[in-house]
Amino acid sequence: MSLDGKPALDGKNVLVLTTNYGTEQDELEKPIAVLREAGARVTVAAQKDEPVQTLVSDRRPGSAVQADTTLTQATADGFDAVVVPGGTLNADQLRTDDDARRLVSAFAEAGKPVAAICHGPWLLVDSGLARDRKLTSYPSLRPDLENAGGEWVDQEVVVDTSGAHPLITSRTPDDLDAFSAAIVDALDGGGNRG
Amino acid sequence: MSLDGKPALDGKNVLVLTTNYGTEQDELEKPIAVLREAGARVTVAAQKDEPVQTLVSDRRPGSAVQADTTLTQATADGFDAVVVPGGTLNADQLRTDDDARRLVSAFAEAGKPVAAICHGPWLLVDSGLARDRKLTSYPSLRPDLENAGGEWVDQEVVVDTSGAHPLITSRTPDDLDAFSAAIVDALDGGGNRG
Repeated sequence: MSLDGKPALDGKNVLVLTTNYGTEQDELEKPIAVLREAGARVTVAAQKDEPVQTLVSDRRPGSAVQADTTLTQATADGFDAVVVPGGTLNADQLRTDDDARRLVSAFAEAGKPVAAICHGPWLLVDSGLARDRKLTSYPSLRPDLENAGGEWVDQEVVVDTSGAHPLITSRTPDDLDAFSAAIVDALDGGGNRG
Repeated sequence: MSLDGKPALDGKNVLVLTTNYGTEQDELEKPIAVLREAGARVTVAAQKDEPVQTLVSDRRPGSAVQADTTLTQATADGFDAVVVPGGTLNADQLRTDDDARRLVSAFAEAGKPVAAICHGPWLLVDSGLARDRKLTSYPSLRPDLENAGGEWVDQEVVVDTSGAHPLITSRTPDDLDAFSAAIVDALDGGGNRG
């Protein structure tokens, strides 16, 4: 709660980008739960208007998460931040999606926070958003992010505010507490929590 | 058969590199079958001395393939070529394996053919073998291979003989006929088939 009794992120809107298969369950569900708990409205945009079949550790079937809209229909207008979960299969496909690239680029150009975790940062490579930024990811992506011009560091969360928009990145599901808290902080401006 | 009645690849030895989970079934089994049919001896080196659980289209469980040795135990000595199959989950993990990088680099330094298909070429990024080479891959890897210094082209198979070793790459399981035939050609010298 903020000092006036409203949740800290009351009135904030967050968009989550995903394909419909292979998104790492906790990387999709946990940031959404934390953001909603803090008062934000969260919209899940998937490739198709169908449930998202998540996976646990890239292997076992996880929960099916309902999508609210499609990547094609979604725009950055009216949203305050974008979140890109991982899951190897999800992230490998998401990076090839023209609408996912268009959306993440629109948030970046508008100066809004872009958050990506685990294999999610591949989308930063395809969108040109890694260059000259300090960031992290699942370790296998390190050469890809470095070759794309990023400075890769091994930290649970990296918040880079040096560029046109805040860039928030984390390594694995183990970092979800820090990752989710950093997104809340970026939206809250760091000064509105009671 | 060659003119003397022996199989074209009689006496040739090929090493295949894989993790134990997520290798695309046909990308593992088909080149092996074609190479053995041509007379080569094929050895499968996996991360662990356990069967390789393959997947079909990165999702459905495929066949379990017995490994002959481990990546740690294997060396390039005595082998004439190395094959790197894809499968997103396999390739994402294989690129982080020190022994896989050591092995593919040893083949390259010895001037022996290196063949990789689909997501397999990620290992070329981590081994520094993409730079200044003409190559292909599953389309999602294109930015990673270009950022690693490669020239990416959209062809069913690319045979680049410009560097220290032949580099053979293909895009997807649909290219397996051309991929397998190119490996046979590279080993056969193109002139010993009857």
